Amino acid sequence: MELVTADDVRAAATRLQGHVVRTPLTAGPPGADFLLKPESLQATGAFKIRGATNAVALLGPGQRRSGVVTHSSGNHGQALALAAARHGAPCTVVVPEGAPEVKVDRIRALGARVVMAPPREREAVAGDLARTEGLALIPPFDDPDVIAGQGTVGLEILEQSPEVTTVVVPVGGGGLASGVSTAAWTVHPRRVRVIGVEPELAADAAESLSVGHPVTWPPERTGRTMADGVRVGLSERTFAHLAARLDGIVTVTEDEIARAVGVLAHGARVVAEPSGALAAAALLAGRIDTVPGRPEATVAVVSGGNADPGLFARLVAQG
Amino acid sequence: MELVTADDVRAAATRLQGHVVRTPLTAGPPGADFLLKPESLQATGAFKIRGATNAVALLGPGQRRSGVVTHSSGNHGQALALAAARHGAPCTVVVPEGAPEVKVDRIRALGARVVMAPPREREAVAGDLARTEGLALIPPFDDPDVIAGQGTVGLEILEQSPEVTTVVVPVGGGGLASGVSTAAWTVHPRRVRVIGVEPELAADAAESLSVGHPVTWPPERTGRTMADGVRVGLSERTFAHLAARLDGIVTVTEDEIARAVGVLAHGARVVAEPSGALAAAALLAGRIDTVPGRPEATVAVVSGGNADPGLFARLVAQG
Repeated sequence: MELVTADDVRAAATRLQGHVVRTPLTAGPPGADFLLKPESLQATGAFKIRGATNAVALLGPGQRRSGVVTHSSGNHGQALALAAARHGAPCTVVVPEGAPEVKVDRIRALGARVVMAPPREREAVAGDLARTEGLALIPPFDDPDVIAGQGTVGLEILEQSPEVTTVVVPVGGGGLASGVSTAAWTVHPRRVRVIGVEPELAADAAESLSVGHPVTWPPERTGRTMADGVRVGLSERTFAHLAARLDGIVTVTEDEIARAVGVLAHGARVVAEPSGALAAAALLAGRIDTVPGRPEATVAVVSGGNADPGLFARLVAQG
Repeated sequence: MELVTADDVRAAATRLQGHVVRTPLTAGPPGADFLLKPESLQATGAFKIRGATNAVALLGPGQRRSGVVTHSSGNHGQALALAAARHGAPCTVVVPEGAPEVKVDRIRALGARVVMAPPREREAVAGDLARTEGLALIPPFDDPDVIAGQGTVGLEILEQSPEVTTVVVPVGGGGLASGVSTAAWTVHPRRVRVIGVEPELAADAAESLSVGHPVTWPPERTGRTMADGVRVGLSERTFAHLAARLDGIVTVTEDEIARAVGVLAHGARVVAEPSGALAAAALLAGRIDTVPGRPEATVAVVSGGNADPGLFARLVAQG
């Protein structure tokens, strides 16, 4: 399989200028030897706007007129709705029946058409719509243009901290980790390592990399983690990127995730959803070496901040 | 009195490069027609690092060796401690007896010497230390170099959003409002208005501007607002800047402040302390006109995020 290249990521960065926030590197919590990259500050609250914008920007004018479709009630659905609206492309989001109404409302508020489907059929329904209505299918992570867009997070980190030697990212479907490890690996093959983080309860990527092929854990199993954004498994494509380029992967417990959400809010003034707090959780728990006294050497990507309000309030009260 | 000029602010911006975060403009909460400037992401959690860094950078080598002193247990105390440490200058912070231990610990952790003083005597104690030990007194706002440093917030906004026509800032001692209105007024005298916001319970700046001279409300009165960062009154210097350059000032209720903290956390993924949420509170309450559908025309500065953890948890649970 042909992998995304650093040139693809650089080209994406040019396309994204003026469309996404160049999030700064900010101080970690007191006493922590790492910096944060708060992608929670993107419009729609997550890094996903990068990949969605890159994919939509690459459509020809005809396809842009016809529109795009995806299957995600989460951050990618909102991101694609916003990216499409900005480029004047109609957008359809296939949402699993039973998805939280607040998420569906947000997608609609961004101007997208919402189509309900039974959870297990939503990918098929999106595929059918793509064929019958001539829509471009833009999946959440299994797409080279989406991966290249997410990789701009890594490119920015390399530019913003010339001292960086370790970048830590959450791993769900693997789009962000694929893109960031591509940026780091190709630009600085020996100097910058990229480490992925998963919840212990959804460690399917770690298992995949260990056994040498993509393994998917059933929803009954991954459904137990509060980090709902990373319950999904790798695709063949993201597996290939991570197998070739990721330098390591570690897991964190639910308690560690919960604590990290509180510490990030109180100690670093950053709102993270549980999935978004994974990288910081691994560092706070001592799962990844840092360079004492040199916080600029290690960057934790806070991938998103769309926490359920009730859950966020509870975690902040505990922290 | 000679006022700070736009050239002073531009020179400060050059000095601050690499020392402070260039905070991005980020989306306001859903449905809101304004952007945010989250200064809560600065090291030590507030814009104060800008003025402190500018003042310390301007010291001669001899004075830098002797050190600096200030009287503030709040965000300026932490900011000066950090700025001094980075420039290799010894720092003394005079703290009122009874200040929260967590704040005192943070100042000490940044390497500063802490001197306790009765609340009403801390300015005098700082002045005495300056004289007897040859320290440079760097007050929280009544200082042209500090004002010029805070003004870089405004300069960045003008650069980041060429469409901006209104900038909204909290007003306590008036350093931020003086600096930002200087940047906006001198660079774009007709186009960009700067509006200040105070709690109804600490509206001494509004009264000062209305009667034509600085009026200070007693601590018994301003102590009632939860926005503890703006309980202080204007100085002659900041009054002169605001009288000449501020375009308006409005007040918000405690309920509006409390609601804004929750809305910023849940809807915009920004952690604000009550004082830091004042500008957004005024906009959310409809106290200041926006341009419907053009959020880039209006920017609310979120000046700080060092909320008391218990209070923040309560406000987030209500929001």
